[in-house]
Amino acid sequence: MDKEQTTIVLFSGELDKAIAAFIIANGAAAYDHEVTMFFTFWGLNAMRKEEAVKTDKGWLEKIFGWMMPRGANKLGLSRMNILGMGPSMIRHVMKKHKALSLPQLIGLAQEQGVKLVACTMTMDLLGLKREELIDGMELAGVAAYLGDATKAKVNLFI
Amino acid sequence: MDKEQTTIVLFSGELDKAIAAFIIANGAAAYDHEVTMFFTFWGLNAMRKEEAVKTDKGWLEKIFGWMMPRGANKLGLSRMNILGMGPSMIRHVMKKHKALSLPQLIGLAQEQGVKLVACTMTMDLLGLKREELIDGMELAGVAAYLGDATKAKVNLFI
Amino acid sequence: MDKEQTTIVLFSGELDKAIAAFIIANGAAAYDHEVTMFFTFWGLNAMRKEEAVKTDKGWLEKIFGWMMPRGANKLGLSRMNILGMGPSMIRHVMKKHKALSLPQLIGLAQEQGVKLVACTMTMDLLGLKREELIDGMELAGVAAYLGDATKAKVNLFI
Repeated sequence: MDKEQTTIVLFSGELDKAIAAFIIANGAAAYDHEVTMFFTFWGLNAMRKEEAVKTDKGWLEKIFGWMMPRGANKLGLSRMNILGMGPSMIRHVMKKHKALSLPQLIGLAQEQGVKLVACTMTMDLLGLKREELIDGMELAGVAAYLGDATKAKVNLFI
Repeated sequence: MDKEQTTIVLFSGELDKAIAAFIIANGAAAYDHEVTMFFTFWGLNAMRKEEAVKTDKGWLEKIFGWMMPRGANKLGLSRMNILGMGPSMIRHVMKKHKALSLPQLIGLAQEQGVKLVACTMTMDLLGLKREELIDGMELAGVAAYLGDATKAKVNLFI
Repeated sequence: MDKEQTTIVLFSGELDKAIAAFIIANGAAAYDHEVTMFFTFWGLNAMRKEEAVKTDKGWLEKIFGWMMPRGANKLGLSRMNILGMGPSMIRHVMKKHKALSLPQLIGLAQEQGVKLVACTMTMDLLGLKREELIDGMELAGVAAYLGDATKAKVNLFI
Protein backbone atom coordinates (compact mmCIF):
# COMPACT_ATOMS: atom_id res chain seq x y z
CA MET A 1 0.00 0.00 0.00
CA ASP A 2 1.17 3.51 -0.73
CA LYS A 3 2.32 5.60 2.16
CA GLU A 4 0.25 8.52 3.36
CA GLN A 5 1.67 11.83 2.22
CA THR A 6 1.75 15.04 4.21
CA THR A 7 3.02 18.45 3.13
CA ILE A 8 3.61 21.59 5.13
CA VAL A 9 4.44 24.99 3.67
CA LEU A 10 6.30 27.01 6.29
CA PHE A 11 5.85 30.62 5.20
CA SER A 12 6.05 32.28 8.61
CA GLY A 13 9.27 33.23 10.32
CA GLU A 14 8.19 32.92 13.93
CA LEU A 15 9.58 30.46 16.43
CA ASP A 16 6.19 29.25 17.62
CA LYS A 17 4.89 28.57 14.11
CA ALA A 18 8.11 26.79 13.13
CA ILE A 19 7.84 24.62 16.27
CA ALA A 20 4.21 23.77 15.44
CA ALA A 21 5.18 22.90 11.85
CA PHE A 22 7.99 20.58 12.95
CA ILE A 23 5.90 18.90 15.66
CA ILE A 24 3.23 18.03 13.08
CA ALA A 25 5.86 16.97 10.53
CA ASN A 26 7.68 14.77 13.02
CA GLY A 27 4.39 13.31 14.23
CA ALA A 28 3.37 12.44 10.67
CA ALA A 29 6.79 10.93 9.94
CA ALA A 30 6.52 8.83 13.12
CA TYR A 31 3.24 7.48 11.71
CA ASP A 32 5.12 6.55 8.57
CA HIS A 33 3.86 9.34 6.34
CA GLU A 34 6.10 10.66 3.61
CA VAL A 35 6.46 14.27 4.70
CA THR A 36 7.57 17.28 2.68
CA MET A 37 8.23 20.63 4.29
CA PHE A 38 8.47 23.51 1.86
CA PHE A 39 10.20 26.61 3.27
CA THR A 40 9.24 29.84 1.60
CA PHE A 41 9.49 33.56 2.38
CA TRP A 42 10.27 34.12 6.11
CA GLY A 43 10.00 30.39 6.78
CA LEU A 44 13.44 29.98 5.22
CA ASN A 45 14.97 31.93 8.12
CA ALA A 46 14.48 28.94 10.41
CA MET A 47 16.73 26.93 8.12
CA ARG A 48 19.64 29.38 7.93
CA LYS A 49 22.95 28.37 9.44
CA GLU A 50 23.68 30.26 12.63
CA GLU A 51 27.15 31.33 11.68
CA ALA A 52 27.65 34.04 9.07
CA VAL A 53 28.54 32.51 5.72
CA LYS A 54 30.75 34.51 3.40
CA THR A 55 28.91 34.99 0.14
CA ASP A 56 29.11 37.24 -2.83
CA LYS A 57 26.01 39.45 -2.74
CA GLY A 58 24.70 42.81 -3.78
CA TRP A 59 23.98 45.47 -1.14
CA LEU A 60 20.22 44.88 -1.09
CA GLU A 61 20.69 41.16 -0.54
CA LYS A 62 23.15 41.98 2.24
CA ILE A 63 20.58 44.20 3.94
CA PHE A 64 17.97 41.45 3.72
CA GLY A 65 20.57 39.06 5.13
CA TRP A 66 21.20 41.35 8.11
CA MET A 67 17.55 42.13 8.75
CA MET A 68 16.41 38.53 8.78
CA PRO A 69 17.12 36.23 11.72
CA ARG A 70 19.82 33.65 11.16
CA GLY A 71 18.53 30.25 12.11
CA ALA A 72 16.28 28.46 14.55
CA ASN A 73 17.79 30.04 17.66
CA LYS A 74 17.12 33.59 16.52
CA LEU A 75 13.44 33.54 15.71
CA GLY A 76 10.88 35.68 17.53
CA LEU A 77 7.33 34.75 18.52
CA SER A 78 4.11 35.64 16.73
CA ARG A 79 2.83 36.96 20.07
CA MET A 80 4.22 38.16 23.41
CA ASN A 81 7.36 39.32 21.68
CA ILE A 82 7.55 42.51 23.74
CA LEU A 83 11.03 43.22 25.13
CA GLY A 84 12.21 40.00 23.57
CA MET A 85 10.91 38.24 26.65
CA GLY A 86 8.50 35.84 24.96
CA PRO A 87 11.00 33.75 23.00
CA SER A 88 13.29 33.18 25.98
CA MET A 89 10.30 32.33 28.19
CA ILE A 90 9.11 29.80 25.62
CA ARG A 91 12.59 28.33 25.27
CA HIS A 92 12.90 28.14 29.06
CA VAL A 93 9.54 26.48 29.52
CA MET A 94 10.19 23.99 26.70
CA LYS A 95 13.47 23.02 28.31
CA LYS A 96 11.84 22.68 31.71
CA HIS A 97 9.23 20.33 30.22
CA LYS A 98 11.92 18.46 28.30
CA ALA A 99 10.21 19.38 25.03
CA LEU A 100 12.52 19.29 22.03
CA SER A 101 13.94 22.65 20.98
CA LEU A 102 13.50 23.83 17.40
CA PRO A 103 17.05 22.79 16.42
CA GLN A 104 16.37 19.36 17.93
CA LEU A 105 13.04 19.13 16.11
CA ILE A 106 14.83 19.95 12.85
CA GLY A 107 17.44 17.27 13.56
CA LEU A 108 14.73 14.72 14.32
CA ALA A 109 12.93 15.59 11.08
CA GLN A 110 16.13 14.95 9.16
CA GLU A 111 16.69 11.63 10.95
CA GLN A 112 13.14 10.57 10.12
CA GLY A 113 13.62 11.38 6.46
CA VAL A 114 11.33 14.39 6.27
CA LYS A 115 12.05 16.08 2.94
CA LEU A 116 13.17 19.67 3.62
CA VAL A 117 12.77 21.84 0.55
CA ALA A 118 13.91 25.44 0.16
CA CYS A 119 11.86 27.59 -2.22
CA THR A 120 14.17 28.69 -5.02
CA MET A 121 12.12 31.78 -5.83
CA THR A 122 12.46 33.08 -2.27
CA MET A 123 16.20 32.38 -2.33
CA ASP A 124 16.49 34.38 -5.54
CA LEU A 125 14.43 37.28 -4.22
CA LEU A 126 16.09 37.54 -0.84
CA GLY A 127 19.52 36.69 -2.19
CA LEU A 128 19.94 33.62 0.04
CA LYS A 129 22.63 31.20 -1.08
CA ARG A 130 22.53 27.43 -0.72
CA GLU A 131 25.56 27.50 1.59
CA GLU A 132 23.69 29.77 4.03
CA LEU A 133 21.10 27.05 4.65
CA ILE A 134 21.58 23.99 6.83
CA ASP A 135 22.96 20.97 5.03
CA GLY A 136 20.75 18.37 3.47
CA MET A 137 18.02 20.61 2.07
CA GLU A 138 16.63 20.20 -1.41
CA LEU A 139 15.99 23.21 -3.63
CA ALA A 140 12.80 23.38 -5.64
CA GLY A 141 9.96 25.60 -6.82
CA VAL A 142 6.20 25.70 -6.52
CA ALA A 143 5.74 22.99 -9.17
CA ALA A 144 7.57 20.44 -7.02
CA TYR A 145 5.49 21.46 -4.01
CA LEU A 146 2.25 21.01 -5.94
CA GLY A 147 3.43 17.64 -7.20
CA ASP A 148 3.77 16.43 -3.61
CA ALA A 149 0.67 18.20 -2.34
CA THR A 150 -1.66 16.60 -4.88
CA LYS A 151 -0.59 13.18 -3.57
CA ALA A 152 -1.17 14.17 0.05
CA LYS A 153 -4.28 14.35 2.21
CA VAL A 154 -2.88 16.67 4.84
CA ASN A 155 -1.60 19.90 3.28
CA LEU A 156 -1.00 22.76 5.67
CA PHE A 157 0.13 26.35 5.15
CA ILE A 158 1.72 27.72 8.29
CA MET B 1 -21.59 6.19 3.06
CA ASP B 2 -18.93 7.60 5.29
CA LYS B 3 -19.29 11.17 6.37
CA GLU B 4 -16.93 13.83 5.03
CA GLN B 5 -14.30 14.79 7.57
CA THR B 6 -12.92 18.25 8.18
CA THR B 7 -10.19 19.31 10.61
CA ILE B 8 -9.07 22.75 11.65
CA VAL B 9 -5.99 23.49 13.75
CA LEU B 10 -6.50 26.81 15.52
CA PHE B 11 -3.00 27.98 16.39
CA SER B 12 -3.60 31.73 16.35
CA GLY B 13 -4.95 33.70 19.26
CA GLU B 14 -6.70 36.49 17.41
CA LEU B 15 -10.44 37.14 17.45
CA ASP B 16 -10.77 37.40 13.69
CA LYS B 17 -8.97 34.12 13.02
CA ALA B 18 -10.96 32.31 15.71
CA ILE B 19 -14.19 33.64 14.16
CA ALA B 20 -13.09 32.46 10.70
CA ALA B 21 -12.20 29.02 12.10
CA PHE B 22 -15.57 28.60 13.81
CA ILE B 23 -17.54 29.86 10.81
CA ILE B 24 -15.89 27.24 8.60
CA ALA B 25 -16.28 24.55 11.27
CA ASN B 26 -19.96 25.36 11.79
CA GLY B 27 -20.53 25.48 8.04
CA ALA B 28 -18.94 22.07 7.58
CA ALA B 29 -20.94 20.62 10.48
CA ALA B 30 -24.14 22.03 8.94
CA TYR B 31 -23.25 20.11 5.77
CA ASP B 32 -22.98 17.00 7.91
CA HIS B 33 -19.20 16.76 8.03
CA GLU B 34 -17.53 15.28 11.07
CA VAL B 35 -15.48 18.24 12.24
CA THR B 36 -12.50 18.29 14.59
CA MET B 37 -11.03 21.54 15.86
CA PHE B 38 -7.62 21.18 17.45
CA PHE B 39 -6.63 24.12 19.66
CA THR B 40 -2.91 24.59 20.08
CA PHE B 41 -0.56 27.35 21.24
CA TRP B 42 -2.38 30.72 21.34
CA GLY B 43 -5.51 29.15 19.85
CA LEU B 44 -6.23 27.67 23.26
CA ASN B 45 -6.83 31.16 24.65
CA ALA B 46 -10.17 31.34 22.83
CA MET B 47 -11.29 28.32 24.82
CA ARG B 48 -10.38 29.57 28.29
CA LYS B 49 -13.15 30.25 30.76
CA GLU B 50 -13.67 33.95 31.31
CA GLU B 51 -13.61 33.81 35.08
CA ALA B 52 -10.32 33.23 36.88
CA VAL B 53 -10.03 29.61 37.98
CA LYS B 54 -8.08 28.85 41.12
CA THR B 55 -5.30 26.44 40.24
CA ASP B 56 -2.06 25.27 41.72
CA LYS B 57 0.69 26.59 39.44
CA GLY B 58 4.30 27.63 39.42
CA TRP B 59 5.19 31.31 39.00
CA LEU B 60 6.07 31.00 35.30
CA GLU B 61 2.76 29.32 34.52
CA LYS B 62 1.03 32.08 36.49
CA ILE B 63 2.76 34.74 34.38
CA PHE B 64 1.70 32.99 31.18
CA GLY B 65 -1.80 32.79 32.59
CA TRP B 66 -1.86 36.54 33.25
CA MET B 67 -0.29 37.51 29.94
CA MET B 68 -2.66 35.50 27.81
CA PRO B 69 -6.25 36.60 27.17
CA ARG B 70 -8.89 34.67 29.04
CA GLY B 71 -11.54 33.50 26.64
CA ALA B 72 -13.40 34.47 23.52
CA ASN B 73 -14.39 37.94 24.71
CA LYS B 74 -10.82 39.03 25.40
CA LEU B 75 -9.07 38.32 22.11
CA GLY B 76 -7.51 41.04 19.96
CA LEU B 77 -7.47 41.32 16.18
CA SER B 78 -4.67 40.35 13.80
CA ARG B 79 -4.97 43.86 12.29
CA MET B 80 -6.33 47.27 13.22
CA ASN B 81 -5.66 46.53 16.87
CA ILE B 82 -4.40 50.04 17.51
CA LEU B 83 -5.82 51.64 20.66
CA GLY B 84 -7.89 48.50 21.16
CA MET B 85 -10.42 50.03 18.79
CA GLY B 86 -10.47 47.24 16.20
CA PRO B 87 -11.92 44.45 18.34
CA SER B 88 -14.78 46.56 19.67
CA MET B 89 -15.53 47.88 16.17
CA ILE B 90 -15.67 44.31 14.87
CA ARG B 91 -17.86 43.20 17.77
CA HIS B 92 -20.14 46.20 17.19
CA VAL B 93 -20.45 45.61 13.46
CA MET B 94 -21.08 41.88 13.94
CA LYS B 95 -23.86 42.66 16.39
CA LYS B 96 -25.35 45.24 14.04
CA HIS B 97 -25.43 42.66 11.23
CA LYS B 98 -26.80 40.03 13.61
CA ALA B 99 -23.73 37.86 12.99
CA LEU B 100 -23.04 35.35 15.74
CA SER B 101 -20.41 36.43 18.27
CA LEU B 102 -17.45 34.15 18.96
CA PRO B 103 -19.00 32.77 22.18
CA GLN B 104 -22.19 32.05 20.22
CA LEU B 105 -20.19 30.40 17.42
CA ILE B 106 -18.47 28.20 20.03
CA GLY B 107 -21.84 27.27 21.52
CA LEU B 108 -23.22 26.42 18.07
CA ALA B 109 -20.19 24.24 17.34
CA GLN B 110 -20.81 22.32 20.54
CA GLU B 111 -24.51 21.90 19.70
CA GLN B 112 -23.60 20.61 16.26
CA GLY B 113 -21.22 18.04 17.71
CA VAL B 114 -17.97 19.60 16.50
CA LYS B 115 -15.18 17.84 18.37
CA LEU B 116 -13.19 20.46 20.31
CA VAL B 117 -9.75 19.17 21.23
CA ALA B 118 -7.20 20.93 23.43
CA CYS B 119 -3.56 20.18 22.65
CA THR B 120 -2.06 18.52 25.72
CA MET B 121 1.48 19.60 24.89
CA THR B 122 0.46 23.27 24.85
CA MET B 123 -1.39 22.84 28.12
CA ASP B 124 1.73 21.35 29.69
CA LEU B 125 4.00 24.07 28.32
CA LEU B 126 1.80 27.02 29.24
CA GLY B 127 0.64 25.42 32.46
CA LEU B 128 -3.05 25.52 31.48
CA LYS B 129 -5.29 23.22 33.52
CA ARG B 130 -8.33 21.37 32.23
CA GLU B 131 -10.59 23.31 34.61
CA GLU B 132 -9.49 26.61 33.01
CA LEU B 133 -10.96 25.55 29.66
CA ILE B 134 -14.64 25.61 28.76
CA ASP B 135 -16.50 22.40 29.54
CA GLY B 136 -16.84 19.61 27.02
CA MET B 137 -13.41 19.75 25.43
CA GLU B 138 -11.36 16.65 24.75
CA LEU B 139 -7.64 16.53 25.50
CA ALA B 140 -5.28 14.96 23.01
CA GLY B 141 -1.95 15.26 21.24
CA VAL B 142 -0.67 15.54 17.72
CA ALA B 143 -1.18 11.81 17.06
CA ALA B 144 -4.93 12.13 17.56
CA TYR B 145 -5.00 15.19 15.28
CA LEU B 146 -3.15 13.33 12.54
CA GLY B 147 -5.49 10.37 12.90
CA ASP B 148 -8.45 12.63 12.12
CA ALA B 149 -6.64 14.68 9.47
CA THR B 150 -5.69 11.66 7.37
CA LYS B 151 -9.39 10.78 7.08
CA ALA B 152 -10.33 14.33 6.06
CA LYS B 153 -10.22 16.21 2.77
CA VAL B 154 -10.33 19.69 4.21
CA ASN B 155 -7.50 20.25 6.69
CA LEU B 156 -6.79 23.86 7.59
CA PHE B 157 -4.18 25.46 9.82
CA ILE B 158 -5.37 28.83 11.06
CA MET C 1 -10.62 12.12 -15.92
CA ASP C 2 -11.71 14.80 -13.56
CA LYS C 3 -9.41 17.74 -13.04
CA GLU C 4 -7.54 18.15 -9.78
CA GLN C 5 -9.11 20.80 -7.58
CA THR C 6 -7.28 23.28 -5.38
CA THR C 7 -8.73 25.88 -3.04
CA ILE C 8 -7.06 28.71 -1.19
CA VAL C 9 -8.71 30.87 1.46
CA LEU C 10 -6.94 34.22 1.59
CA PHE C 11 -7.76 35.61 5.01
CA SER C 12 -4.66 37.74 5.55
CA GLY C 13 -4.24 41.23 4.26
CA GLU C 14 -0.48 41.30 3.83
CA LEU C 15 1.35 41.69 0.55
CA ASP C 16 3.68 38.75 1.10
CA LYS C 17 0.88 36.35 1.97
CA ALA C 18 -1.21 37.50 -0.99
CA ILE C 19 1.80 36.97 -3.28
CA ALA C 20 2.34 33.46 -1.88
CA ALA C 21 -1.35 32.66 -2.36
CA PHE C 22 -1.37 33.81 -5.98
CA ILE C 23 1.90 32.03 -6.82
CA ILE C 24 0.47 28.74 -5.57
CA ALA C 25 -2.86 29.40 -7.31
CA ASN C 26 -1.19 30.28 -10.61
CA GLY C 27 1.10 27.26 -10.33
CA ALA C 28 -1.83 24.95 -9.74
CA ALA C 29 -3.76 26.50 -12.65
CA ALA C 30 -0.72 26.03 -14.89
CA TYR C 31 -0.86 22.32 -13.98
CA ASP C 32 -4.45 22.30 -15.08
CA HIS C 33 -6.07 22.28 -11.65
CA GLU C 34 -9.42 23.94 -11.18
CA VAL C 35 -8.52 26.59 -8.64
CA THR C 36 -10.80 28.56 -6.32
CA MET C 37 -9.52 31.47 -4.27
CA PHE C 38 -11.86 32.57 -1.53
CA PHE C 39 -11.16 36.07 -0.19
CA THR C 40 -12.36 36.70 3.32
CA PHE C 41 -11.72 39.24 6.08
CA TRP C 42 -8.52 41.24 5.33
CA GLY C 43 -7.80 39.12 2.28
CA LEU C 44 -10.50 41.07 0.45
CA ASN C 45 -8.36 44.21 0.61
CA ALA C 46 -6.05 42.80 -2.06
CA MET C 47 -9.02 42.70 -4.42
CA ARG C 48 -10.23 46.27 -3.93
CA LYS C 49 -10.03 48.68 -6.83
CA GLU C 50 -7.32 51.26 -6.35
CA GLU C 51 -9.47 54.25 -7.14
CA ALA C 52 -12.07 55.41 -4.64
CA VAL C 53 -15.52 54.23 -5.65
CA LYS C 54 -18.49 56.38 -4.73
CA THR C 55 -20.86 54.28 -2.66
CA ASP C 56 -23.71 54.85 -0.30
CA LYS C 57 -22.47 53.77 3.14
CA GLY C 58 -22.97 54.37 6.83
CA TRP C 59 -20.23 56.14 8.82
CA LEU C 60 -18.82 52.94 10.32
CA GLU C 61 -18.50 51.32 6.91
CA LYS C 62 -16.79 54.50 5.68
CA ILE C 63 -14.27 54.30 8.52
CA PHE C 64 -13.53 50.67 7.69
CA GLY C 65 -13.15 51.69 4.06
CA TRP C 66 -10.62 54.38 4.98
CA MET C 67 -8.70 52.23 7.43
CA MET C 68 -8.23 49.30 5.09
CA PRO C 69 -5.77 49.39 2.20
CA ARG C 70 -7.27 49.81 -1.23
CA GLY C 71 -5.93 47.14 -3.52
CA ALA C 72 -2.84 45.15 -4.27
CA ASN C 73 -0.48 48.11 -4.43
CA LYS C 74 -1.31 49.30 -0.93
CA LEU C 75 -0.72 46.21 1.18
CA GLY C 76 1.92 46.01 3.88
CA LEU C 77 4.11 43.06 4.82
CA SER C 78 3.64 40.56 7.64
CA ARG C 79 7.23 41.33 8.69
CA MET C 80 9.82 44.07 8.22
CA ASN C 81 7.07 46.62 7.89
CA ILE C 82 8.95 49.18 9.97
CA LEU C 83 9.02 52.64 8.43
CA GLY C 84 7.10 51.26 5.48
CA MET C 85 10.44 50.19 4.05
CA GLY C 86 9.72 46.47 3.74
CA PRO C 87 6.97 46.62 1.10
CA SER C 88 8.91 48.91 -1.20
CA MET C 89 12.05 46.80 -0.77
CA ILE C 90 10.09 43.68 -1.67
CA ARG C 91 8.48 45.40 -4.66
CA HIS C 92 11.91 46.64 -5.76
CA VAL C 93 13.56 43.25 -5.45
CA MET C 94 10.70 41.50 -7.24
CA LYS C 95 10.99 43.94 -10.13
CA LYS C 96 14.76 43.50 -10.25
CA HIS C 97 14.31 39.73 -10.49
CA LYS C 98 11.53 40.15 -13.04
CA ALA C 99 9.11 38.39 -10.69
CA LEU C 100 5.47 39.21 -11.35
CA SER C 101 4.00 41.91 -9.12
CA LEU C 102 0.80 41.20 -7.18
CA PRO C 103 -1.41 43.05 -9.72
CA GLN C 104 0.25 41.00 -12.49
CA LEU C 105 -0.26 37.77 -10.52
CA ILE C 106 -3.94 38.67 -10.11
CA GLY C 107 -4.23 39.35 -13.85
CA LEU C 108 -2.55 36.02 -14.65
CA ALA C 109 -4.91 34.19 -12.32
CA GLN C 110 -7.87 35.71 -14.13
CA GLU C 111 -6.41 34.77 -17.52
CA GLN C 112 -5.90 31.22 -16.35
CA GLY C 113 -9.49 30.96 -15.18
CA VAL C 114 -8.83 30.87 -11.44
CA LYS C 115 -12.19 31.39 -9.75
CA LEU C 116 -11.95 34.49 -7.53
CA VAL C 117 -14.65 34.52 -4.89
CA ALA C 118 -15.41 37.35 -2.46
CA CYS C 119 -16.87 36.29 0.88
CA THR C 120 -20.32 37.86 1.13
CA MET C 121 -20.32 37.80 4.93
CA THR C 122 -17.13 39.87 5.06
CA MET C 123 -18.55 42.31 2.51
CA ASP C 124 -21.64 42.74 4.67
CA LEU C 125 -19.65 43.21 7.87
CA LEU C 126 -17.10 45.64 6.48
CA GLY C 127 -19.61 47.36 4.24
CA LEU C 128 -17.70 46.59 1.03
CA LYS C 129 -19.72 46.94 -2.15
CA ARG C 130 -19.35 44.80 -5.28
CA GLU C 131 -18.32 47.84 -7.31
CA GLU C 132 -15.35 48.44 -4.98
CA LEU C 133 -13.83 45.08 -5.94
CA ILE C 134 -11.99 44.36 -9.16
CA ASP C 135 -14.17 43.15 -11.98
CA GLY C 136 -14.84 39.50 -12.61
CA MET C 137 -15.15 38.29 -9.03
CA GLU C 138 -17.88 35.95 -7.88
CA LEU C 139 -19.72 36.53 -4.62
CA ALA C 140 -20.43 33.59 -2.35
CA GLY C 141 -20.48 32.33 1.22
CA VAL C 142 -18.86 29.60 3.24
CA ALA C 143 -21.18 26.93 1.81
CA ALA C 144 -19.83 27.50 -1.70
CA TYR C 145 -16.27 27.39 -0.38
CA LEU C 146 -16.89 24.07 1.37
CA GLY C 147 -18.50 22.68 -1.77
CA ASP C 148 -15.29 23.32 -3.70
CA ALA C 149 -12.97 22.33 -0.86
CA THR C 150 -14.50 18.88 -0.41
CA LYS C 151 -13.69 18.14 -4.06
CA ALA C 152 -10.08 19.32 -3.68
CA LYS C 153 -6.94 17.68 -2.34
CA VAL C 154 -4.99 20.85 -1.72
CA ASN C 155 -6.91 23.21 0.58
CA LEU C 156 -4.88 26.01 2.10
CA PHE C 157 -5.77 28.77 4.56
CA ILE C 158 -3.42 31.72 4.18
